[in-house]
Amino acid sequence: MAVFATPGRVYLVGAGPGSPDLITVRGLHILRSADVVLHDALVATDLIREARADAAIIPVGKRGYCVGSTKQETINDALVRFAREGKSVCRLKCGDPCVFGRGGEETEVLAAAGVPFEIVPGVTSATAATAAAGIPLTHRDVGQAVALVTGHHDPDSPDCTLDWDALARLPGLVFYMAARHVAKIASKLSDSGMSPDTPAAVIESATLPAQRVVVGDLADIGDRVEGDGGPAVLVVGEVVARANPGRESGGVSKVEPISTPGLASGVRRGVPA
Amino acid sequence: MAVFATPGRVYLVGAGPGSPDLITVRGLHILRSADVVLHDALVATDLIREARADAAIIPVGKRGYCVGSTKQETINDALVRFAREGKSVCRLKCGDPCVFGRGGEETEVLAAAGVPFEIVPGVTSATAATAAAGIPLTHRDVGQAVALVTGHHDPDSPDCTLDWDALARLPGLVFYMAARHVAKIASKLSDSGMSPDTPAAVIESATLPAQRVVVGDLADIGDRVEGDGGPAVLVVGEVVARANPGRESGGVSKVEPISTPGLASGVRRGVPA
Repeated sequence: MAVFATPGRVYLVGAGPGSPDLITVRGLHILRSADVVLHDALVATDLIREARADAAIIPVGKRGYCVGSTKQETINDALVRFAREGKSVCRLKCGDPCVFGRGGEETEVLAAAGVPFEIVPGVTSATAATAAAGIPLTHRDVGQAVALVTGHHDPDSPDCTLDWDALARLPGLVFYMAARHVAKIASKLSDSGMSPDTPAAVIESATLPAQRVVVGDLADIGDRVEGDGGPAVLVVGEVVARANPGRESGGVSKVEPISTPGLASGVRRGVPA
Repeated sequence: MAVFATPGRVYLVGAGPGSPDLITVRGLHILRSADVVLHDALVATDLIREARADAAIIPVGKRGYCVGSTKQETINDALVRFAREGKSVCRLKCGDPCVFGRGGEETEVLAAAGVPFEIVPGVTSATAATAAAGIPLTHRDVGQAVALVTGHHDPDSPDCTLDWDALARLPGLVFYMAARHVAKIASKLSDSGMSPDTPAAVIESATLPAQRVVVGDLADIGDRVEGDGGPAVLVVGEVVARANPGRESGGVSKVEPISTPGLASGVRRGVPA
């Protein structure tokens, strides 16, 4: 068995939903200090520029879905190899690393290889996309539960193991990576007893300048959006009807740049000052 | 009707799950620039210290649950009043502002009053607590859906409108603010057909030094935790059994402080450099 004098460490970091300043302070710290950055293709270029000038930057994954066309095994192997070389590795993933991001598989491999790792959670698309569209993800009047669901699989394929009858009975649903299957998902829910006039929205490129929000109901949302396969979430439930059009959220920032004295020392992990 | 020469603005900012460095970069920017900060009681003191020295700091809400003992109407009125005085108001809320945080109600009031506002999403407890405990919130093998559920209401009370039969059929569940009702929630799920040996975990004070993780199954998790009413999430599903004990996550930071040149200018909302 090999012995590694200076074991590295892997950080699975959530980059957040799109806008680069929706990464966490901790995630940005780690990105800026890492020797190696392996990032999903959809991570903002402005964020990747925050890496050290001498860091190795390795794009993995494909555009459109935060699931790798780079084989997962290749990513896993690279994480272990760099860590064993003593490197600090930032695995920068879209949204949150463990919400439909295969973070669980990567940590399984790291644990089996004895590589120290840490998961740094991120803002997940369900909360960010709805906030950017003015939709309250939960609402005491109409939503005591919301399910986050992968929309990546064709609902008619055997890869899809969703229990549509159970989903149709929940007050709120957010389907990730749903762009290609909006119409089929809506049909499945209607067929399972959800009212066809249940409000629904598709939010594309949430929190980015290209953000687009399409609102309808279960009966027509499939026709309202084009199945172009871009990054999008589908939100279903009464909360969609509670959207506040007066909001100014999402991709447009009105905050002036401000200085950040004390960021590194002032905001740490619960350590008393 | 009154006319306001210099209308203020309200930012509903998610403070994240506990550890102060799990706020977003954007959230921290807003906190540091605000004239007024109204914060939930559970927001970390280290984070509140990041506000301007001359900012008005107003604690609202009570310890234990991120739901106000300060009446919601009082909070709503204060938000509108400060904004109408031309103030920049940071409403700093635990976790994400719109996941069981009554953010939807606050934005309704702001929209009705014509006050400009923006929601800045945050890392929600479901992802942070599971990451800190090494539990993959979703896993391609065992979880294509996960429901976020409020555990705040007594399951036997009329305030609780949850469909237990539907929840019991989902592969993953996270109950927020569940500390007082762990045993009853587990019973409801068992009674609704979920296997009593379904893995379950309670995570208290997630991402903080006081973090405590208790693992069991539906049949015994209620006995394993004390109903002390502290901040805790209950996680139910096979993903609990996929936890990787080799992880080093959560409340203990191993990253050295680093400088943050260019934070304000480098990471903005998708604006090309």
